[in-house]
Amino acid sequence: MHRILNVHLVPEMANPHDLAGHTSVVIDVLRASTTITTALNAGAEAIVPCLTVEEARQLAGAKSGSLLGGERGGVRVQGFDFGNSPAEYSSDRVRAKTIIFTTTNGTKALTRCMGAGRVLLAALVNRAAVCSAIAEDPRVDLICAGTDGEFSFDDAVTAGAIVDNLVIRGEEWQLSDAARICRCAWQSAVGSEGDRTRIVTALENSSGGRNLIALGMEGDLKLASQLDQLNVVPELDRSTWQIRK
Amino acid sequence: MHRILNVHLVPEMANPHDLAGHTSVVIDVLRASTTITTALNAGAEAIVPCLTVEEARQLAGAKSGSLLGGERGGVRVQGFDFGNSPAEYSSDRVRAKTIIFTTTNGTKALTRCMGAGRVLLAALVNRAAVCSAIAEDPRVDLICAGTDGEFSFDDAVTAGAIVDNLVIRGEEWQLSDAARICRCAWQSAVGSEGDRTRIVTALENSSGGRNLIALGMEGDLKLASQLDQLNVVPELDRSTWQIRK
Repeated sequence: MHRILNVHLVPEMANPHDLAGHTSVVIDVLRASTTITTALNAGAEAIVPCLTVEEARQLAGAKSGSLLGGERGGVRVQGFDFGNSPAEYSSDRVRAKTIIFTTTNGTKALTRCMGAGRVLLAALVNRAAVCSAIAEDPRVDLICAGTDGEFSFDDAVTAGAIVDNLVIRGEEWQLSDAARICRCAWQSAVGSEGDRTRIVTALENSSGGRNLIALGMEGDLKLASQLDQLNVVPELDRSTWQIRK
Repeated sequence: MHRILNVHLVPEMANPHDLAGHTSVVIDVLRASTTITTALNAGAEAIVPCLTVEEARQLAGAKSGSLLGGERGGVRVQGFDFGNSPAEYSSDRVRAKTIIFTTTNGTKALTRCMGAGRVLLAALVNRAAVCSAIAEDPRVDLICAGTDGEFSFDDAVTAGAIVDNLVIRGEEWQLSDAARICRCAWQSAVGSEGDRTRIVTALENSSGGRNLIALGMEGDLKLASQLDQLNVVPELDRSTWQIRK
């Protein structure tokens, strides 16, 4: 039997009704899903995603010992412990901590998946781990977070990296048209070997990548491009609204 | 100065406000834009696009001598003169005729462009002619019609064929992320040489192509795949709501 593999190119194209009961994977490679994966790998206990700065401050006030992370316009919010650069989330700072994390695009994508069977987060750094976690599922929906409602190439090429890996594993997948174009993007911009230099170039050529370069954060593109390096699959527990390993 | 080249992967992603004053190009390669281009090339005087079968019948009743074309579920509407296969629109049947043509996806895409500077229709058969017509424009928006609100690979790969041609002509274009992924689709699935067999395969692997094959209309994929063969650029005159050469 063919498994079904869909990609939703922006969150608005994912119908919550269609996701119900199946596996949803949210992709916001520059930078929320990369940063969350990095923080959990460094020993953070949980990440609490939220939409607004105000909500983040309220939650942090209610939970003693928690830390605040996130950005607006690419820059750390004033008074927050962390911005949205994966480099900031080192073991010595995050181990055993709960991090209240505000990310607009990623949180919007997560809210589409309230009825899904399970909700995972994927980036390039944990691509292989995510693929292993979903390889047996009958239906998987990859949801590209995009940027402010706009399609973004960086998330689509990451979705393509996942599609490519799942297909190469030899299982029979029925690809949606969007899954097909994302795989084309990965094959054309990077290639199945996953050449690191080409991944960086693909991210540089995306709208999200250009924004980071303009902010002097091109180092984050190199961190985000480290394909298959982290064996962590972040999963959203919707009953507690926490992301954990 | 860089020209701006955007692709909207479904009509809903095109903001009518952003299109205002610029050139919009609607793509519904399987099959409305291919069929309309073919009919105009065969000598039809004008095509009147409309959303519903009822509206088409009313317009045809009001304009004596006009003919009715279009499909529902891929099949010719009962009582209509033509379905939506380009093969039907031969010179002997369409010369000097006005054709009232109902196509849901294409018409929805056209209605997004009411404020555009001009509105053209593109398919693979007239790719080069369209590129010549828009090569000097400061901003071009390619709008993929999709299928029932869903993204479709066939329109995206056609958009990619246009992007690829414009870039290869040597002008400096600033590509949106969606323009970039469509070019990847064209390069990965077909290649800049435009190999005919690979175009047919790309169309066969799209949701629109599979639907046509299931209806026994795979011949239309071969007609739609004839890259750069027709020197016709259909343009929508919004004051009369007619598409003409």
